Amino acid sequence: MHDDLPCMDDDDMRRGRPTVHKVYGSRVAILGGVAMIPLATIVARDATRQMGLPDNTGRTIIGTLLDAGGSGGMIGGQQRDLAGEGLALSLEEREAIHSAKTGALIVGSVRMGALAARANDAAMECLERYGRDIGLAFQIMDDVLDVTSTSSALGKTTGRDAALGKSTYPALLGVDGARQRAQSLIADGLDSLRAHGLLTQELSQVANFMITRTS
Amino acid sequence: MHDDLPCMDDDDMRRGRPTVHKVYGSRVAILGGVAMIPLATIVARDATRQMGLPDNTGRTIIGTLLDAGGSGGMIGGQQRDLAGEGLALSLEEREAIHSAKTGALIVGSVRMGALAARANDAAMECLERYGRDIGLAFQIMDDVLDVTSTSSALGKTTGRDAALGKSTYPALLGVDGARQRAQSLIADGLDSLRAHGLLTQELSQVANFMITRTS
Repeated sequence: MHDDLPCMDDDDMRRGRPTVHKVYGSRVAILGGVAMIPLATIVARDATRQMGLPDNTGRTIIGTLLDAGGSGGMIGGQQRDLAGEGLALSLEEREAIHSAKTGALIVGSVRMGALAARANDAAMECLERYGRDIGLAFQIMDDVLDVTSTSSALGKTTGRDAALGKSTYPALLGVDGARQRAQSLIADGLDSLRAHGLLTQELSQVANFMITRTS
Repeated sequence: MHDDLPCMDDDDMRRGRPTVHKVYGSRVAILGGVAMIPLATIVARDATRQMGLPDNTGRTIIGTLLDAGGSGGMIGGQQRDLAGEGLALSLEEREAIHSAKTGALIVGSVRMGALAARANDAAMECLERYGRDIGLAFQIMDDVLDVTSTSSALGKTTGRDAALGKSTYPALLGVDGARQRAQSLIADGLDSLRAHGLLTQELSQVANFMITRTS
């Protein structure tokens, strides 16, 4: 009666390994994912305490995490992504969806680090821009890899976007155009960090990973 | 390709109205449910601030909510409930599952109220016991109504537990035995509150609702 039907996603591989829902079934995968939300919040709370941050900063960090994950961020973006399947979306509409779906969590991660490091307003603004740029570049390259890579190299099924009727970046800009857009986002983000004296090796590596990854 | 398959639950009614997954499909229902977790945490945070509670109390209240909802509480209990379907569970095993699945959130709710009211240790212990008692009574009556009520009176499909092979309270204790157990839990919980001078009309009404509800 409770068959594990593939209601979540038809893609069964990530980074060359079977997904949780493939191995344990949809219902366990859903519950496992849901359990991550209170767990992540508890981890953030304990970490801010252990770091000895002021209560106010700890609360702002946890609020950032909740906002980035919630209906205004990842979860809301996922919903808008599902609702847009099969529709011909403009580049602007597609960017708004990804800005919420994956971008908000990436920006939130950068923001949490900046809060913990007591960044001032100018540094925060610059770091958030960096977060938005690498988040969007990540998503563009996700679309590009879906078109250009093989399933075995990518470690998950390729060609799914087209099958789902998604208006992807390669469909909108061409593969080369999409790749160039991702590269210029990374370059802009790093230039801006450099201009503000905020460029570190780690931030540079994370940014470059977005456009050089193959899986 | 992304059909809304009934992967969550085969029951399409609650309190006489179609469920969210019936109306909007499984994927929207899952995302809506997931979105409630960060939202509830944000609501708790804002409420503790508006009440002017000390930071420490606010953090304890939010931690209580997260623990009650997470893998040690509701989500973990749901997982154990799914894993136990079709197995012959003892009364003890079944109570442990319900204690986590529905009990933890009910106890957590009582505890959050007690924290906000600055209850002392003795009062907290008594109130938590009340929470455990009414939570278990709620679950026992859920099993009883599944057997004794009609789908139209209950507002959701009856007879599902037996169909799922669940070892329910009526199956273990008989319908009358199960009902008596729920009633004695409520009586004990209210007696304990009364003995500690904590019995209010609201706590009494909530407790009695657990054993008098018909839907």
